[in-house]
Amino acid sequence: MTLPRLILGIDPGLQSTGFGVIEKQGSRLAYIASGRIRTDARESLPQRLGVVFDSVREVIAHYQPGEAAIEEVFLNKNPWSTLLLGQARGAAIAALTTAGLSVAEYGTMQIKKALVGQGRASKDQVCHMVVRLLKLNANPQADAADALACAICHAHAGHGFGAAPEGGEVRRHAGRVLPSR
Amino acid sequence: MTLPRLILGIDPGLQSTGFGVIEKQGSRLAYIASGRIRTDARESLPQRLGVVFDSVREVIAHYQPGEAAIEEVFLNKNPWSTLLLGQARGAAIAALTTAGLSVAEYGTMQIKKALVGQGRASKDQVCHMVVRLLKLNANPQADAADALACAICHAHAGHGFGAAPEGGEVRRHAGRVLPSR
Repeated sequence: MTLPRLILGIDPGLQSTGFGVIEKQGSRLAYIASGRIRTDARESLPQRLGVVFDSVREVIAHYQPGEAAIEEVFLNKNPWSTLLLGQARGAAIAALTTAGLSVAEYGTMQIKKALVGQGRASKDQVCHMVVRLLKLNANPQADAADALACAICHAHAGHGFGAAPEGGEVRRHAGRVLPSR
Repeated sequence: MTLPRLILGIDPGLQSTGFGVIEKQGSRLAYIASGRIRTDARESLPQRLGVVFDSVREVIAHYQPGEAAIEEVFLNKNPWSTLLLGQARGAAIAALTTAGLSVAEYGTMQIKKALVGQGRASKDQVCHMVVRLLKLNANPQADAADALACAICHAHAGHGFGAAPEGGEVRRHAGRVLPSR
């Protein structure tokens, strides 16, 4: 019998950071939770980065995932947007790493390929597969769907089949799987 | 009598993050400490961001500054470099903010103007003024000098003259000023 593993997927952004928690047992995937962390554009950049960090930490404390996966950022045409996104991603990754989680990174095309079978799939196709694979009743919010897709990609990745992720042991979550929401 | 204030300046970077701690009492500035946090390029990006975060936290725990100032990043010609720098900056700012510090941001020209009197001053001129204003015996390492310059700029800024920084009270450090190193 394979022990269940909780995987946290993160889709970082300064305005909105999506998160998704899934459970993998053998080849079975189950939805645990998803949502998004929003920051107030009227607050300063340092305050907003603090919110991203603290909220990712809250999600970790609540669901106790054993592994994390994060989407790689693409370069925005606007370099200032790239810079803002980069800073939000840095705060989110720092929250994951310093909580003791191993963090795997996946590119957008890699995620699309893992879910739909081809790297140029549309967002709608990816969302459709997230709904199907996790047996959801409705489409999740867009950032949450991206985060769930990233977690599913990690579950399907080489080291995702029961083996320990590179550079660390598989940490067991406390056994208390919280109700889906 | 004005109470002394400890200011932490940060010059963020993925390879090397400079830090500098100064004390301001009335119009007098004193050097407390400076150095740099280096990350190992052979480690993964998440691991390196974790080192930046943890090390900034260690500096805070050790010197107990009441305020922080960080240099704004400029856009590198290479967008990937901008993205890496942005992520390091995000991790560093998250460490400062979530430790309860108010974080002020200053542009390079603003820092040069505060120290040398004109925004297009050379790095050497800035370093020279850091040495002079803090009565140092030798030039600090480049990233540490930039971080000290940022802290001095903050000390000279409007709210730096004994008033509380915007959005927070001046927190007193524990009174134990550690020896310079």
